Amino acid sequence: MTVGFIGLGNLGRPMAINLLNAGFDLRVYNRTAEKAHAVAAGAADRVVVAQSPVGVAMPGGILLTVLSDDQAVTSVADDAVLAALGPGGVHVSMSTILPATSQRLAQTHAAHGVTYVAAPVFGRPEAAAARKAWICTSGPEDAKARVRPILDALGQGIFDFGTSPGAANVVKLSGNFLLAAAIEGMAEAAALGEKNGIPRDALLGFLTNTLFNCQIYNGYSQRLIAADFDKVGFTNELALKDMRLASEVALASATAMPMLDLVRRRYLAAVANDRGWLDASGLALGAAEDAGLRWFRPSREEEGR
Amino acid sequence: MTVGFIGLGNLGRPMAINLLNAGFDLRVYNRTAEKAHAVAAGAADRVVVAQSPVGVAMPGGILLTVLSDDQAVTSVADDAVLAALGPGGVHVSMSTILPATSQRLAQTHAAHGVTYVAAPVFGRPEAAAARKAWICTSGPEDAKARVRPILDALGQGIFDFGTSPGAANVVKLSGNFLLAAAIEGMAEAAALGEKNGIPRDALLGFLTNTLFNCQIYNGYSQRLIAADFDKVGFTNELALKDMRLASEVALASATAMPMLDLVRRRYLAAVANDRGWLDASGLALGAAEDAGLRWFRPSREEEGR
Amino acid sequence: MTVGFIGLGNLGRPMAINLLNAGFDLRVYNRTAEKAHAVAAGAADRVVVAQSPVGVAMPGGILLTVLSDDQAVTSVADDAVLAALGPGGVHVSMSTILPATSQRLAQTHAAHGVTYVAAPVFGRPEAAAARKAWICTSGPEDAKARVRPILDALGQGIFDFGTSPGAANVVKLSGNFLLAAAIEGMAEAAALGEKNGIPRDALLGFLTNTLFNCQIYNGYSQRLIAADFDKVGFTNELALKDMRLASEVALASATAMPMLDLVRRRYLAAVANDRGWLDASGLALGAAEDAGLRWFRPSREEEGR
Amino acid sequence: MTVGFIGLGNLGRPMAINLLNAGFDLRVYNRTAEKAHAVAAGAADRVVVAQSPVGVAMPGGILLTVLSDDQAVTSVADDAVLAALGPGGVHVSMSTILPATSQRLAQTHAAHGVTYVAAPVFGRPEAAAARKAWICTSGPEDAKARVRPILDALGQGIFDFGTSPGAANVVKLSGNFLLAAAIEGMAEAAALGEKNGIPRDALLGFLTNTLFNCQIYNGYSQRLIAADFDKVGFTNELALKDMRLASEVALASATAMPMLDLVRRRYLAAVANDRGWLDASGLALGAAEDAGLRWFRPSREEEGR
Repeated sequence: MTVGFIGLGNLGRPMAINLLNAGFDLRVYNRTAEKAHAVAAGAADRVVVAQSPVGVAMPGGILLTVLSDDQAVTSVADDAVLAALGPGGVHVSMSTILPATSQRLAQTHAAHGVTYVAAPVFGRPEAAAARKAWICTSGPEDAKARVRPILDALGQGIFDFGTSPGAANVVKLSGNFLLAAAIEGMAEAAALGEKNGIPRDALLGFLTNTLFNCQIYNGYSQRLIAADFDKVGFTNELALKDMRLASEVALASATAMPMLDLVRRRYLAAVANDRGWLDASGLALGAAEDAGLRWFRPSREEEGR
Repeated sequence: MTVGFIGLGNLGRPMAINLLNAGFDLRVYNRTAEKAHAVAAGAADRVVVAQSPVGVAMPGGILLTVLSDDQAVTSVADDAVLAALGPGGVHVSMSTILPATSQRLAQTHAAHGVTYVAAPVFGRPEAAAARKAWICTSGPEDAKARVRPILDALGQGIFDFGTSPGAANVVKLSGNFLLAAAIEGMAEAAALGEKNGIPRDALLGFLTNTLFNCQIYNGYSQRLIAADFDKVGFTNELALKDMRLASEVALASATAMPMLDLVRRRYLAAVANDRGWLDASGLALGAAEDAGLRWFRPSREEEGR
Repeated sequence: MTVGFIGLGNLGRPMAINLLNAGFDLRVYNRTAEKAHAVAAGAADRVVVAQSPVGVAMPGGILLTVLSDDQAVTSVADDAVLAALGPGGVHVSMSTILPATSQRLAQTHAAHGVTYVAAPVFGRPEAAAARKAWICTSGPEDAKARVRPILDALGQGIFDFGTSPGAANVVKLSGNFLLAAAIEGMAEAAALGEKNGIPRDALLGFLTNTLFNCQIYNGYSQRLIAADFDKVGFTNELALKDMRLASEVALASATAMPMLDLVRRRYLAAVANDRGWLDASGLALGAAEDAGLRWFRPSREEEGR
Repeated sequence: MTVGFIGLGNLGRPMAINLLNAGFDLRVYNRTAEKAHAVAAGAADRVVVAQSPVGVAMPGGILLTVLSDDQAVTSVADDAVLAALGPGGVHVSMSTILPATSQRLAQTHAAHGVTYVAAPVFGRPEAAAARKAWICTSGPEDAKARVRPILDALGQGIFDFGTSPGAANVVKLSGNFLLAAAIEGMAEAAALGEKNGIPRDALLGFLTNTLFNCQIYNGYSQRLIAADFDKVGFTNELALKDMRLASEVALASATAMPMLDLVRRRYLAAVANDRGWLDASGLALGAAEDAGLRWFRPSREEEGR
């Protein structure tokens, strides 16, 4: 079976490779063509590198997109691509975008007989590579059933949120908000500890070994302790984008969220102070600096940057 | 070996029983005498019910206190009690109080030759009963070593934070803040979900099965979903007290904490609106009502209240 | 001299009448035609009621628009209208819109030889009627000079902010934010007073007679004291729109504004709780209710509502 | 008529001189004796410099205190001083302190037959010198009537808030909060303007000439524009103290105040970053720096500091 795949960035590439490893052949496209050729390099006979998005769309086939934002998804899934997919085609949209964008896309897709499935991914690139990502889905049941084997090859668990096109996007944005909130909470607690004589590794070590012993707290507490925020997995700038999208959903649905306002403001201040390129865990610097602490320790390999 | 024990409230009582079960004899005191007699009832030969705090203090012995606030601890550990404990005595103070109170107490204790050990407890009464509590300690090393067997009988893990008298209190307040922050975060995320068509059990169920699979998120998400905040383990009023103490520490140490301000404000608004008696998980009602949602579902057994 | 005028709502109507009083003849258009005829009623020989926006645009002439939002302005100033105005024409855009919208409009106008001038208005309808409004301008100098007599007939003062098309819009949004912030500040202070035994008319009366003796504080303190928020000049819903626009400008320019977040959140919670129709001074209810106070006193004439 | 006066700091000194100018003789005390002698220098025959607080208390007389905080007032108005004032004596307490402190003091005073009047002052030292201060009063009516001529000599207006001892203190703290909130509001608006190309003198100049044309906005906008926050009238540290007191009143009276939380946090962050010594208008730096702006321009005379 052959799958179309557009978007071979930090997150898309390991996912494409997982599909190859699971036995799927691929037609791939990426704006920067080298990345597409890099994926094809290891499996030339099973990967076709297309010259345009239309080139990966097979009549009645399945197309996965892993793109950076709403605009990118909307412009890729244009009339030409949808016409090429045509009746029976399924587009699995795995980017972090607005639910309203998914709703609009579901309509434009339907006009071409294509089914739109939202399937955003929780997981940093390393997690995606290790098939440790979590995937949320929403869309028509039969299309979700059809693409299920593909999603199973990409993550350690699939959670479904029904048939409303944008539901999975709401869940993704909610989760990303909660993740940022956890970082801010840990940062404030750690700052309070340090200003009172308790090293942050001791405080966070205790908390993450006991009450908060889970992936997010474990992973991000390690980053807060190391404070080498120039080791970037996901930037402040992208995190700000996600908080902005979550705020738009909140505004559109009349949901007042002061904690979301707080973390969005932190990321915005980071970007305003030329820290947009730091890792999103660097949100913690806001709380540290408000307490007069200077945590950031550039990683050695980045010092020359 | 006999241990003095003052404070047999919701949290103290199961702890006293754990000590009995572990083979320690007790001298107990409680302001409301019935609670002391209730503990003694099952083991009359091993429990002495004293008529006053002094009555539980044995020369050179060990005294545990599990009290509601700074004022209670300070008034119990008065000159008479400290004189009765005298040189070699150890007071293990397990209440959630200010680090500054611990520092002052350490000094007044030292004047009588008594050692003060802070050992606050993380755990609701059920957890304490099941020996699932976590205990943080700070104070002189030899005293901590001496009381270690007692603490081992009370919790599933002991974490030490050095010799500064108030250090463990800072950790306890930081942890309680982080817990409140987690509730607010989940409540905002769940409100966003519900306003966009996703039931909160679906959203929180996903998050707590994946990224946030830990005690605090699992336990409190269940309470948010049930929304029977009149089933009270720990009240909004007591949570407000803890946030107030954390704020005092933050103020005294020049640590600006906007997320702490937010959760403190939520509890304060709850108290202002006659909801001080609800469970502290009811913090979630603030986010729900700011979104126009009405979550509170009185539990059946409380409906006649 | 004849002026084109589109938008005869609460604010536009008194402005149109002021122009008539100042000796300008008008060509008017309003989506709801009755409002246009109502303005014409008193001066039939000097007012032409057009059937479409194009009908008010005179070659090389001046067009004023007083519309509700960005979308309305953009759709009115379409190619047909701009072609009708043509070279030498000036469009004075007096609505509260995004600076980015003004920038885009300035470009589309220029393509038709039309000059775009932003001239948003500070003032409730009563103030506009009494020529007490304040007007901010930005745009090309010669166009501003040409329309100056018209603006002089509309307000008590004109303040210019240079040639960048959107500058005046930024000032307008900043001012509306500051106004909302003043309401929230007064509401919190008044709530603190009342919870401590001081009636809010006494507290606000003192402050507005001394340190805060200015239009905004005087006017809004009266509304807070009366608390008849169903007497509506400008709704919570419209205020939310303005805070949303201000937030978009803040986000686009990387300006972190926690006080703006706070007032936006208050308006959002009001809308979420079916209070979008109340007057924008009803922002105060948030602070009151967070303190357990119930201020809202429906005005007698509205009680049957 | 002779008046006792304790506290000749930045604010007390010009007030004492105003009393001399109005014809009152003085008995003065100040912890740093030179300041007392400085006041006496110009009117040696009408000023007695006492060696202790007791030395200024005349049986049945009037004592004014202008001190830095609750602790200072409480320790000055001790049993010895109150016994010396004795029946018929009146203590006019003009410091910014907690209402609860006034309530306690009213009781200890009553035990000695002394009447306690709270009379806090709004006004920077320059304003006090120019008799431009505003004074709020609370306490027993007859005592307030008796001291009225003295207060008239000290300010441009007296506002009374009834007989509850602490009422005037609540008003004072509310006013100081509102002042800080106005600074934050202006700072955010000005930052938004500057990030969008509008100099802050243009934006604030417009607003303070129109909607916000009052003492606080005029005075503080000038300071924000000049940004010479090392010209200190009243420090960030003292402003933080006032916000802390306001927060304590809010907490004690169950009044949730998010805007107060915000300005308190700003001052706390300033103190945490070694800016406690800057002028309280320097609160504005928080908003500026969150937007990536660097406003602070040390005044020339302070550059060598």
